[in-house]
Amino acid sequence: MEQAEHATVGELGELAVLGRILPRLRSGDAALIGPGDDAAVLAAADGRYVVTTDLMVHGPDFRLAWSSPFDLGWKAAATNLTDVAAMGARPTALVVALAAPPATPVAVLEGFADGLREALAELAPGAGVVGGDLSASSVLTIAVTAFGDLEGRPPVLRSGARPGDVLAHAGARGDAARGLALLFDEATDATGEPDAAAAERVRTEHPVLVAAQLAPRPPVSAGVIAATAGATAMLDVSDGLARDALRIARASGVDLDFDSARLGADPRVALAGAEDHGLLAAFPAGTVPPEPFEVVGRVVEGAGVVRVDGVAADALGWDPYSGWDGRAG
Amino acid sequence: MEQAEHATVGELGELAVLGRILPRLRSGDAALIGPGDDAAVLAAADGRYVVTTDLMVHGPDFRLAWSSPFDLGWKAAATNLTDVAAMGARPTALVVALAAPPATPVAVLEGFADGLREALAELAPGAGVVGGDLSASSVLTIAVTAFGDLEGRPPVLRSGARPGDVLAHAGARGDAARGLALLFDEATDATGEPDAAAAERVRTEHPVLVAAQLAPRPPVSAGVIAATAGATAMLDVSDGLARDALRIARASGVDLDFDSARLGADPRVALAGAEDHGLLAAFPAGTVPPEPFEVVGRVVEGAGVVRVDGVAADALGWDPYSGWDGRAG
Repeated sequence: MEQAEHATVGELGELAVLGRILPRLRSGDAALIGPGDDAAVLAAADGRYVVTTDLMVHGPDFRLAWSSPFDLGWKAAATNLTDVAAMGARPTALVVALAAPPATPVAVLEGFADGLREALAELAPGAGVVGGDLSASSVLTIAVTAFGDLEGRPPVLRSGARPGDVLAHAGARGDAARGLALLFDEATDATGEPDAAAAERVRTEHPVLVAAQLAPRPPVSAGVIAATAGATAMLDVSDGLARDALRIARASGVDLDFDSARLGADPRVALAGAEDHGLLAAFPAGTVPPEPFEVVGRVVEGAGVVRVDGVAADALGWDPYSGWDGRAG
Repeated sequence: MEQAEHATVGELGELAVLGRILPRLRSGDAALIGPGDDAAVLAAADGRYVVTTDLMVHGPDFRLAWSSPFDLGWKAAATNLTDVAAMGARPTALVVALAAPPATPVAVLEGFADGLREALAELAPGAGVVGGDLSASSVLTIAVTAFGDLEGRPPVLRSGARPGDVLAHAGARGDAARGLALLFDEATDATGEPDAAAAERVRTEHPVLVAAQLAPRPPVSAGVIAATAGATAMLDVSDGLARDALRIARASGVDLDFDSARLGADPRVALAGAEDHGLLAAFPAGTVPPEPFEVVGRVVEGAGVVRVDGVAADALGWDPYSGWDGRAG
């Protein structure tokens, strides 16, 4: 019993590990055939399905001294669900592939599965995990592919914003970046390495900001709300409001003009901070954006520039290759 | 020009790397919305879709001294397409997430994309790549999720084999394992590390066996052929014929009895060798299995055991955590 409690994935082997993980997950309402065969079969009632995929890698994407296994599962689900929501779709299912060092305790994978399950239950009720893969690697790596149902609606793309549209946002603005800055400032040791005990203290002192970084609660259900209200364009704000706004501006051939007075006490952090996973959407002129959306600006004629109070702004963001110093922790 | 030719992914950054990769790929016939938005939208004509996911990790799953970038792309596509085929579905699309060290030459990713494209064109014409993700990691890691269309047919599961059924197989039997043994025996240096020049020599001398390991050509189109002919059970033989047969035997509650005379000169290698990615299927009694399937035995009453010439056989196979010695190469 004690043995099984502390067993590693290498000791137990793939089948036994799956036997510990799968009972913690449900396959969800869309699963016609769930885990256990060569592939799953999912329902697509309107003859279409939405697909997005994302990798999370120990080091550039998370630090094990800061994130619990539960946090990792939660965040892997939450970020992918938001990409589905950003199309105006209802998330239906995930497949999850995980590569772990053989010395990883099985309890880490169990905590990860619990995080997946709880994020799905809270952010996308009815959605589940329909399949996956387990591999060995010296670097803990998580690959999630998420699916969604457009329920007969057209997808909401980045390219549909039109001059005159109202620009609105749902979710946190800058909290995840503030949480990350706190962790780097106050939860590292003298050599700059992430420190678990210090992270625990920072999390107790700043629960909202740290949770925004480690286990975000994006407004997943707002995706369908926006689509139903006629949103003309929408995306998941993962790289910062300014940089992601630029993607809508360029795809739609318009300028997006933020009203700094609507961006909180520090508009610069609100515009530059990455990983909030809010939804930025444009609504037709005259529309009152539905809750939880808040007006943050407007769409104007232009050639693909982001503005703040009418002035062109540089876009700040995050590049996966340039943003990592090679450390893990 | 010389600069761009030898640039690394870290130097170019995500956007520029995508700009070099995406033109090498097509999104395929099922893509209603392809790469470039938060998610893709795919057609599911009969209201269902098949989904499977798989990770390939440098070290346990491939050695860069042996596999070219093209090989890696080819194999990542081929193995996932076979899982879709094993459900009796026609493969329609892939999403591909890749994590690479920042010092990886962009040319490696271009070769990888070429391998994906060519494998799709040869093994699953009409299928394409509809999305992906790029991340940084110290370990080259490839995550593929593949999709398929059942075209109105029921999926062919592992659980449908019945006593009296004909057991048939399509594809190579043991070639991939023979190729891997050749590489380990003849393409390593004095310290046991994989050696690229030696691998080139081995590949010239044994092109079929080495290609079966590094860039397999599984019988993907045979999946739809089997389903149309009424296959009662089917799976992708990735862990060896005996071990994978055991999965059908257990799921169906029957015994599978191989006829060793139909397994070639070395039935033991045919039964134990992993990674051939052939299709093992059961067909109703009296059916002549359609080409390229060959009869290899029969389904008999039993409680989930694999037999050879009527005698219960131990299943030999491969576990992702126990099978890797920690080396990469």
